[in-house]
Amino acid sequence: MFRRTLLASILFASLSFAPAGNHVIAEEQTLYGYSAESSQTERQWEEKLRAVPNPENMRAYMKLLSAHPHHVGSPYDKQNAEWILGKFKEFGLDAQIEQFDVLFPTPKERVVELVEGGPKFVAKLQEPAVAVDPTSNQQAEQLPTYNAYSIDGDVTAPLVYVNYGVPEDYEQLERMGVSVKGKIVIARYYHSWRGIKPKVAAEHGAVGCLIFSDPHEDGFVQGETFPSGPYRPPDGVQRGSVADMPLYPGDPLTPGVGATKDAKRLKVEEAQTITKIPVLPISYADAQPLLAALTGRVAPAEWRGGLGMTYHVGPGAAKVHLVVKSNWEPLKTLYDVIAKIPGSTFPDEWVIRGNHHDGWVNGAEDPVSGQIAILEEARALGEMAKAGWKPKRTIIYCAWDGEEPGLLGSTEWAEQHYDELRAHAVAYINSDTNGRGYFGVEGSHTLEKFSNDVARDVTDPETKLSVWKRDQLHKIADAKTAEQREEIRKRADLRIPALGSGSDYTAFLQHDGVASLNFGFGGEDGGGIYHSIYDDFYWYTHFSDTDFVYCRALAQAGATAMMRLADADLLPFEFGDFADTVQAYLKELKVLAQKTQDEIRERNREIEEGVFQATNDPRRPLVAPSAEAVPPHLNFAPLENAVDTLNRSAAEYHKALEQLNAKGGAAMAASSLVEVNKLLIESERRLTNAEGLPNRPWFKHQLYAPGFYTGYAVKTVPAVREAIELKQWKQADEAIVVVARVLENEAALISSAAQKLAAVK
Amino acid sequence: MFRRTLLASILFASLSFAPAGNHVIAEEQTLYGYSAESSQTERQWEEKLRAVPNPENMRAYMKLLSAHPHHVGSPYDKQNAEWILGKFKEFGLDAQIEQFDVLFPTPKERVVELVEGGPKFVAKLQEPAVAVDPTSNQQAEQLPTYNAYSIDGDVTAPLVYVNYGVPEDYEQLERMGVSVKGKIVIARYYHSWRGIKPKVAAEHGAVGCLIFSDPHEDGFVQGETFPSGPYRPPDGVQRGSVADMPLYPGDPLTPGVGATKDAKRLKVEEAQTITKIPVLPISYADAQPLLAALTGRVAPAEWRGGLGMTYHVGPGAAKVHLVVKSNWEPLKTLYDVIAKIPGSTFPDEWVIRGNHHDGWVNGAEDPVSGQIAILEEARALGEMAKAGWKPKRTIIYCAWDGEEPGLLGSTEWAEQHYDELRAHAVAYINSDTNGRGYFGVEGSHTLEKFSNDVARDVTDPETKLSVWKRDQLHKIADAKTAEQREEIRKRADLRIPALGSGSDYTAFLQHDGVASLNFGFGGEDGGGIYHSIYDDFYWYTHFSDTDFVYCRALAQAGATAMMRLADADLLPFEFGDFADTVQAYLKELKVLAQKTQDEIRERNREIEEGVFQATNDPRRPLVAPSAEAVPPHLNFAPLENAVDTLNRSAAEYHKALEQLNAKGGAAMAASSLVEVNKLLIESERRLTNAEGLPNRPWFKHQLYAPGFYTGYAVKTVPAVREAIELKQWKQADEAIVVVARVLENEAALISSAAQKLAAVK
Repeated sequence: MFRRTLLASILFASLSFAPAGNHVIAEEQTLYGYSAESSQTERQWEEKLRAVPNPENMRAYMKLLSAHPHHVGSPYDKQNAEWILGKFKEFGLDAQIEQFDVLFPTPKERVVELVEGGPKFVAKLQEPAVAVDPTSNQQAEQLPTYNAYSIDGDVTAPLVYVNYGVPEDYEQLERMGVSVKGKIVIARYYHSWRGIKPKVAAEHGAVGCLIFSDPHEDGFVQGETFPSGPYRPPDGVQRGSVADMPLYPGDPLTPGVGATKDAKRLKVEEAQTITKIPVLPISYADAQPLLAALTGRVAPAEWRGGLGMTYHVGPGAAKVHLVVKSNWEPLKTLYDVIAKIPGSTFPDEWVIRGNHHDGWVNGAEDPVSGQIAILEEARALGEMAKAGWKPKRTIIYCAWDGEEPGLLGSTEWAEQHYDELRAHAVAYINSDTNGRGYFGVEGSHTLEKFSNDVARDVTDPETKLSVWKRDQLHKIADAKTAEQREEIRKRADLRIPALGSGSDYTAFLQHDGVASLNFGFGGEDGGGIYHSIYDDFYWYTHFSDTDFVYCRALAQAGATAMMRLADADLLPFEFGDFADTVQAYLKELKVLAQKTQDEIRERNREIEEGVFQATNDPRRPLVAPSAEAVPPHLNFAPLENAVDTLNRSAAEYHKALEQLNAKGGAAMAASSLVEVNKLLIESERRLTNAEGLPNRPWFKHQLYAPGFYTGYAVKTVPAVREAIELKQWKQADEAIVVVARVLENEAALISSAAQKLAAVK
Repeated sequence: MFRRTLLASILFASLSFAPAGNHVIAEEQTLYGYSAESSQTERQWEEKLRAVPNPENMRAYMKLLSAHPHHVGSPYDKQNAEWILGKFKEFGLDAQIEQFDVLFPTPKERVVELVEGGPKFVAKLQEPAVAVDPTSNQQAEQLPTYNAYSIDGDVTAPLVYVNYGVPEDYEQLERMGVSVKGKIVIARYYHSWRGIKPKVAAEHGAVGCLIFSDPHEDGFVQGETFPSGPYRPPDGVQRGSVADMPLYPGDPLTPGVGATKDAKRLKVEEAQTITKIPVLPISYADAQPLLAALTGRVAPAEWRGGLGMTYHVGPGAAKVHLVVKSNWEPLKTLYDVIAKIPGSTFPDEWVIRGNHHDGWVNGAEDPVSGQIAILEEARALGEMAKAGWKPKRTIIYCAWDGEEPGLLGSTEWAEQHYDELRAHAVAYINSDTNGRGYFGVEGSHTLEKFSNDVARDVTDPETKLSVWKRDQLHKIADAKTAEQREEIRKRADLRIPALGSGSDYTAFLQHDGVASLNFGFGGEDGGGIYHSIYDDFYWYTHFSDTDFVYCRALAQAGATAMMRLADADLLPFEFGDFADTVQAYLKELKVLAQKTQDEIRERNREIEEGVFQATNDPRRPLVAPSAEAVPPHLNFAPLENAVDTLNRSAAEYHKALEQLNAKGGAAMAASSLVEVNKLLIESERRLTNAEGLPNRPWFKHQLYAPGFYTGYAVKTVPAVREAIELKQWKQADEAIVVVARVLENEAALISSAAQKLAAVK
């Protein structure tokens, strides 16, 4: 399911910590969290480790893993899990399969037809095989095109085009005087996670929802279509889950607990994450006749897609019949493959790495391109172990099942092992889809410095620069302002975006409070086979990382990170970047509150001045907005105080660590640092609370969550930010107090760790 | 030819002169330039005047004037001129036709065909008649689709798509490693005046140029196409001139002098404004197979149009054969209709109003929608004269011929009468195309206050607000920043954009130095019939100002302005707004110079850092730019000093006028102000110099000119601005001195006028 928002822009100004970060020869720098001596040893092991991953192996793994459709419940899904299990064992890891039983509906009946208002048209809902592509003709094994967890329904209603189907689009519809009540909406993919579209449509009274891939974003407008090029062909369809995952991911029937055989389950009709209206995804070939039948107002300029015709909003005579019916039974079995290298010194400290193995169809890019790197990492670490390397901490490699329908395998496992993970997990590092281009890292800001350090030690296959340096220069090229460029050039570490949702880190980070990162390359190649039958070996080896060198680079980055975390004397958490980031979030929130006030005040003034009447074209009338109460000023003081405390504690920790480093060898030994490391492991847990976010208690993390109305995209400080966005001022004020308390606790933990560090002899 | 850039945005901050400008009841305010007493009389006349224009008359005029194609040299062009002459006479004006003989090539041979690299295709180059549209079938009388003043040529060459064909597009082509040398380019209309496209293409070595209307800007992407809606149908073509008018407009054979029978003429091959390569405009139906045959790199995102296909840049196998041959002889006769109401007190002070009467085909919108307002104005003023009104100054109404090929009729007349106009012209007010929506004014900033005052006295037909108020509220709605809104709300006058080119004011303002304005309504209706056979009575009465109420509003605005200028005691020039505007231009120039320095410095730094290598995708390589010398600092001091002097003189004039107003009646009488008025008439002339702009001496005005590489769009302070844009630093420094001297002279004139005002008893 994962969809990387590449190269997220730098959104905020910040303090800078150190002078220009040119590429430093790896060997000359002592690793953060290591004594000079242990750093040298570690660097030698890492060097050997990074030499192991082999593109040809990965090509072979991909060919095998993507040879047949391998969605949840399919024979090849199980077969792949067993093959991966065998591989982990072959590499010397202690591996097993862990099973869960989950709700996973598959299509029973699908109909989309234009019944009035245009030439009778029945949608094909079928992706044709392509002669040159040998796996595209496995129709009997392919899941039909559909959106998993759509409610069953059979509706006939007029059609309305709602652009991307996000809340702003409905504001514009309201101004145009168009209601979707009792209508079927047709929305294009993009600009939100797909599950948001039926959710918002249902909130506005729609009775059905179609989601189509418009060639403007996802088809011939971008370039040649498959098989001539990488882009989505006319009949290509994006499958995908529409469960309300911003409420809770995982099995809809077992929120918060592992879906074991005997777990207590909700009834299907009690599951809150199933959509309220029927939903189907369609291709642009199927969408074209429906959109062409629409009449009414011409769509606003930004709503117009690439289909080579006039887009209208409707409603009019065009009436659609939509049927969605699923097989809801029986429950399907998930096969999570879990493999371990036990820690030699601290076996109860777990460093975890994962990627899913299930695909919507053949899934060569998604997820196999990431999964093969994970396998090659496991092989490399196995080789090192055979050569005498002993990780201090336990290393766990996971190949998740059921990510596509809703992060099922990782979520159920993270729920099932909640207490253990809270006690033992040092960090979780995820990967998913991988491609050619820039190294993308997102995640916990306590690991921002760590992830930058890893990126400094991996070489970009195309430019031979470090992937860190290439990314820095790319960010300079993309920066919008001189201030942004200045920061990119001078700040020691490149900023990493926070994690929202869209892949298997979600339960670890946001439910369990485990510090998490997501690694992957991309940004150079386009594509249009996401969640279609064309995401296969043929496509990947023609249009993506065709010689698997970026898959090798990912394996090098992942393996380096795992080894370095497993071996560190002092766990490489860092709080200066973290405090700096939280301070930037606070600044954003204050700007957002101010901007909301200003906008409402300005709009009220314009209403009073008669701006909306004066600019109303009688041939294309718009409904004027209503005046709104100007928002109150919020009390940000608790957060401001907390951020001050956080900055002080981060500085304290930094100073204590410098002093420790100066003491040298013995003091820096892991044995002296057991208590500090325990606190460091605890540090991300402290950012959660038991109650979770308002109205979605599954999400415990108080700094990072997927947006309730964005789905993938992160909302940082979500309780505060979303309250402001939804104009819930009382809740915003309350949330400020809650988050401030969480941050004060975090600062206390950091201070405590600093004091322990200072006390080490 | 005129193409209004609607609702030009407010580009600069400024001083504000007076508190909020709510709509003031006309009768309560003393007119600027009038004593209280004469103001009252004037207002009574104006009230009567504005009651005269009648939509039904204008509908009848349009039906008649657009009944047949009436381009230069056609029988109906002459017939229309004679009919207009008759009308002016009927209205009581002293009218005559003035003739000129000009070069006007018409098509002899036109071929566009795809000869290699795709299915053989011969372009239709023909707009079909439409059954419901009664004038669309006059094929025998219609000028074929072509670009006037294309050089003759017969070329066969590979095709390259160059987006809009402006200089930035060629920079991007260079980075992509694509040369147009020896190629035929295909450019889409928009983002520059059309004549820029072949000019820039030829500068880059192209041998031919096709210009097409892309449906993204001009066709079905915008809405229903004709005859279902107002937008350009598949075979619709935009005719138009491609003469190098930014060098000099008017007859290519007689630059600077009137094209009278005996004028000394250049040979055709000596005429510098004829294109260097053959050019033809084509429809999107004709462009589609050519663009579809292009291979090579996929066009950059912003280059992609609306044709529902993948756009490529080329070159590749696609080869085009282009033939353009014209009938260059004989010279064609222009019929300018000139009508006068002689001034009763100051017959040698001329207030001039104009619009063209020639069209590319039937020309209902362009130019008849403006021409009918002009006629109704003349009728209204004639009515007033019959009722006893006597204008102090001479009023001249002009219906120009030959605007479409190159502002021929107005330019030849303004050249022929250069000395008289320099001596007598108070102001020139132009109109062209008119439609439904907002009142647009552009022009001389010494008349900014005057044009705002006129707008305050005309009622918007839809909202019943004054057109000024509606425009103000619209500008508030469109403003991008709080600062812009603040200025719009508080500044006494709305800013007016400067005039570039694109209609008949050009020679008056930029060659003769006559203060000029352009009036017209628009902004609510879209269209796609510009310069096609579908710009006719059927289209206008179905999709534009269908009940002619905005044509009436234009007649009311134009007639009010003419009467008010003709009757004023003191000519209503104002220098506060003017000085404020020049100061804003100076600020822009300094920002531009700084920005150019910063950009070059930053790019050099990125070249040194290796940004371009690091971000180069080996599958889609880009050529890195070369380092450039960082521009020197320019000496803006002469302009800064001149602007200070200008501000002082404007304040001096303002104060003297306030004192005069306080003295009341007798002092304010026109008879006391003869000398001051002479200076005021002279004020725009002082903004010109005899040498004209560097490399284009025809353009004498030192503040306003069409951009050498934009064609329509204005470049203010052009000698300085274009030197900076072209990185000619020495020339920029020299131009600053020249313009500063012009402005110092202007300030001296204003001071002198202020002193004379102060001396009036």
